[in-house]
Amino acid sequence: MSDPRLQALEYVRRNRDRFLEDLKEFLRIPSISTDPAHHDDVRRAAEWVADRLRKAGAERVEVLPTGGHPVVYGEARADRPEAPTVLVYGHYDVQPPDPLDLWESGPFEPTVRGENLYARGASDMKGQVMASIAAFEALVQAGPLPVHVKFLIEGEEEIGSPSLPAFIEGNRERLQCTVSLNPDAGMIAPDLPTITYGLRGLAYFELRVYGPAHDLHSGLYGGVVHNPAQALCELIAGMHDAEGRVTLPGFYDRVRPLTDEERAELARLPMDERFYLELTGAPALWGEAGYTPIERIGARPTLEVNGLLAGFTGPGAKTVLPAYAMAKISMRLVPDQDPEEVYQQLVRYLEAHAPKTVRWEVIRMAGVRASLTDRNHPAVQALSRALEAVWGRRPLFKREGGTVPIVTQLKEILGVESVLTGFGLPDDNYHAPNEKLHLPTWSRGTEALVHFFYNYGER
Amino acid sequence: MSDPRLQALEYVRRNRDRFLEDLKEFLRIPSISTDPAHHDDVRRAAEWVADRLRKAGAERVEVLPTGGHPVVYGEARADRPEAPTVLVYGHYDVQPPDPLDLWESGPFEPTVRGENLYARGASDMKGQVMASIAAFEALVQAGPLPVHVKFLIEGEEEIGSPSLPAFIEGNRERLQCTVSLNPDAGMIAPDLPTITYGLRGLAYFELRVYGPAHDLHSGLYGGVVHNPAQALCELIAGMHDAEGRVTLPGFYDRVRPLTDEERAELARLPMDERFYLELTGAPALWGEAGYTPIERIGARPTLEVNGLLAGFTGPGAKTVLPAYAMAKISMRLVPDQDPEEVYQQLVRYLEAHAPKTVRWEVIRMAGVRASLTDRNHPAVQALSRALEAVWGRRPLFKREGGTVPIVTQLKEILGVESVLTGFGLPDDNYHAPNEKLHLPTWSRGTEALVHFFYNYGER
Repeated sequence: MSDPRLQALEYVRRNRDRFLEDLKEFLRIPSISTDPAHHDDVRRAAEWVADRLRKAGAERVEVLPTGGHPVVYGEARADRPEAPTVLVYGHYDVQPPDPLDLWESGPFEPTVRGENLYARGASDMKGQVMASIAAFEALVQAGPLPVHVKFLIEGEEEIGSPSLPAFIEGNRERLQCTVSLNPDAGMIAPDLPTITYGLRGLAYFELRVYGPAHDLHSGLYGGVVHNPAQALCELIAGMHDAEGRVTLPGFYDRVRPLTDEERAELARLPMDERFYLELTGAPALWGEAGYTPIERIGARPTLEVNGLLAGFTGPGAKTVLPAYAMAKISMRLVPDQDPEEVYQQLVRYLEAHAPKTVRWEVIRMAGVRASLTDRNHPAVQALSRALEAVWGRRPLFKREGGTVPIVTQLKEILGVESVLTGFGLPDDNYHAPNEKLHLPTWSRGTEALVHFFYNYGER
Repeated sequence: MSDPRLQALEYVRRNRDRFLEDLKEFLRIPSISTDPAHHDDVRRAAEWVADRLRKAGAERVEVLPTGGHPVVYGEARADRPEAPTVLVYGHYDVQPPDPLDLWESGPFEPTVRGENLYARGASDMKGQVMASIAAFEALVQAGPLPVHVKFLIEGEEEIGSPSLPAFIEGNRERLQCTVSLNPDAGMIAPDLPTITYGLRGLAYFELRVYGPAHDLHSGLYGGVVHNPAQALCELIAGMHDAEGRVTLPGFYDRVRPLTDEERAELARLPMDERFYLELTGAPALWGEAGYTPIERIGARPTLEVNGLLAGFTGPGAKTVLPAYAMAKISMRLVPDQDPEEVYQQLVRYLEAHAPKTVRWEVIRMAGVRASLTDRNHPAVQALSRALEAVWGRRPLFKREGGTVPIVTQLKEILGVESVLTGFGLPDDNYHAPNEKLHLPTWSRGTEALVHFFYNYGER
C-alpha cells in the first residue's frame, strides 16, 4: 500500500474515533462570538485550533490578532514548489445556544445519539473544521503533500466577520493561494453530495419617508396631508410588478442569463415547489414568473422588505398620523449586478415615483457583489470527482441564495475563487436548539476532502 | 338694573379677578389621569370641582365613583319646571406635562405673562370648566335660572373616557336633559367665535398579514415566498386610488353629501391650503380630489395608517424575511357611515385583494359613529346669538375632523344632541409644553355662556 492517497484514506478510517473525541473536546468550548461573557472561551477555541493544527503537522501556526476575535493561521508545503495552494477557510465560533430549555442534552456537552452527534457548532462548523484538519493530518502522515495547504480559521463568522476584510488586506502575502476551499456550505441530503458554485450578493438600504414636521392627530389632519406610512407602502408596492419582477429601472440589465445547460443542472436538485412549501410553511409559493424556485433563489435577483416601522405599534389604538415611516429594504444580487448601480437604480425609482407630498432619503447599509465560480475551474472538477469517489454519484451543483462575504472578499482582495461544499445536512438545526452532525456523512466528507487534495494536486 | 341677564354679565365682569384666582387654584392640582402616581391629585381635583360647584350654588353635588376616576355631578333648577335642561360637559383631568424642560414656568405653577395664563390644563380644559362654573354662578346670583343646569365633569377624558359609557348608562335619570353644552372645542382665532356642529366618527383596526410559518433568511428564501411586509404594503397601497379616494367597496355609499349651503358656510372658515401647510409642515397637501382641505377634514371620510411593524427595525441590517407584518389602520367616518359596515367593507376589500400567498386577519379596536348637530337646533341658534352678542360678528360653523366619544354616547344612550364651542385658541399648546389660556378670550367666553343660558331659556 504505497499509494499515499490510499494510505491517507486508511488513516482517516483508522483514526475515526480519535477524531470524534477531538471534535467533542472542541465542541465543549462555548466559543459564542457575540457574547462578551464568552470572550475567553472564544480565545480558548482559537488556541485549541492552533494546537490541533500543530499536532496535525502544520507549520508557522499562529493565533493572529484582529480588531476583534483572533484568526488562526497555519500552513504546510508540498514537496513540489509549483504545486497549487489550497486555502482552507473555516470558523471556530458558534451561535448562542438559546433557548436552552429546548435542548435534549447540553449544547456544550457533545452527546452521540444514534448516528448523530449533538452539540452547538457540531454542524456549523466545528465538525467541518475538524474534518478538514483530519484530512490534512492524514495527508501529512501519508507522505509528501500533493498541494500546499493553508488554514484561515476565524472567530467572528457568526457576527458577520467584521474584522476579516482588514485582516485579509494586511496578510496578502501570507494568504496567497490558488483557490479557497470553504466547507461551510452544506449538502442537500445524506446521499446527495453538493457543490455550491454561486452565491448571491447583497445591497441593503434603509428607506425613510417623511411627511408632516411632527406627528399629527389623525382626526384633526387626516385628509389633508399624505400619510408617510401610506406613501411608503405605495412606494414599496410599486417595486414589484404583477409577475413578481423588480421594477427598479435597469435592475435586470446586468443580470447574467441562465444557460440551458445550467438550468438543466439546477433542475437536477430535489428542491421543487413542494420542498419549499414544506420548509417555509407559507400558504403558497410566490416569485418571479418564468423561473423555478431554485432558479429564483440562486440565479435571479430579488428585493425584500426586511423591516417596517411607523407610528404607533403597541397594543391598542392611538390615532396618530405619523411624521415618519421607515423600511429596511435589501436586494439579493446575482452576477454581474453591482451594489453601487443598484443603489442608483433605487434612487432613480424613488425620484420617479415618490410624490411631492413627502420627502425621502435612502441610507446605504451594505453592499456585496454576488460570486459565481466557473464549474470548469480545476478545483471544482477536483472536488466533483472527490465527492463522486466517496458517494458513488455525481454531485449536485447548486447556486445558493445567501451571501458569504468571505468569498467575495477573497475574490476582490486576493483575486481568488472559492469552492464551497460541506457535510452538514438541512435538518442539522444550525442556529437552533439540538444542532447535530450526521457522523456517517461527516466521515465520508473527511474522506472526500482527502480525495480533493490529491485530485487537485494532480492537475 | 333689574334685567337678570345684565346683572349676570355685570357679576362676571366684577368678579373676573376672583374667577382667575379660582382657576389658578384649580390649575395647581396636577390631575394627570394617565399617571397612577397622581391618583390622589386626580381625586383632589374632583373634590375641588365639587366644592366650587357648591359655592356657585349647585345642589345635589356629588363625586360619583366609576370604574376609574370619579365623575363630578351637580345641578340647579329653573323656576319654570318646563324650562329646558342644559347638561354642561367638562373634564378636570389633564395631559402629562412632559417634556418638562421646555416649560418656561412650572406646568402646575400658573403664571400670567402678558394676556395669557400659562399652566397645564389652562386651555384643555380647566379654563373652560371654570368659565362654565363662573357663568352659572352669575346666573344664580342674578335671580331665577332661565334653564335647568346640570354638570357632568369627568376625570378620564385624556385617557379616552373608558368609564363614561357605563356611567351614562347607569345614570340615565340623573343625566336627562334637553341638550348638552360641550365647551371642549376651541375657536379658530381670537376674533372668530366658532361653533363645532359636526364630528367625525372612528373605526380602528389592526390588520395582520402572515406569510411563512417563521422568520426566514432572506438570502436562502428570498424569491420563493411572498414577503408579508411587501404584501401588507401592496394591500395598503390599494386602499386609495390616484385621486385620494378610499377604495373599500361601498365606502362612500352612506356618506351624506355636502349641500351647497354647507359648502358656502365652510368656505367662510379661514383655513385654506396655506393654513394647513404651515400648521403641519408637510411638503405639500394631499387628499381627496374635488374637496377643499376643511371639507376633507370635517365632512369627508378618510383612511389612515396609524402604525406599521414588520421584521427588523433596529439600527443596522438584518436579512430577515419576516413571517408577519402588522398595520394599525383607522377610518374617520362621517354621517351616515356605520362602523360595523366599514368593518365589513374592509373585510370585503381584503377578501377581494389579498393574494393566496399570505393569510390575514383583522382585529377590531374601536367603532364610533360620526355626529352632526342640526345647525337649526334651538341650542345652536342660542349659542350663535350669544357669540355674536359678545364678539359682534356671526360665529363660524365648523365640522371637526376628530372624534369626541362623549358626544356620540350622549346621542346614542340618551338621545341628546351636543353643541360644541370653547374659548381655546389654536396656538394654546394643549398637549404640549407652555399650554396657555388667552385671558381676554376667556372672559368674553364666560359672558357668551351667560348669554347662551338666557337665550336658550327664552325659546
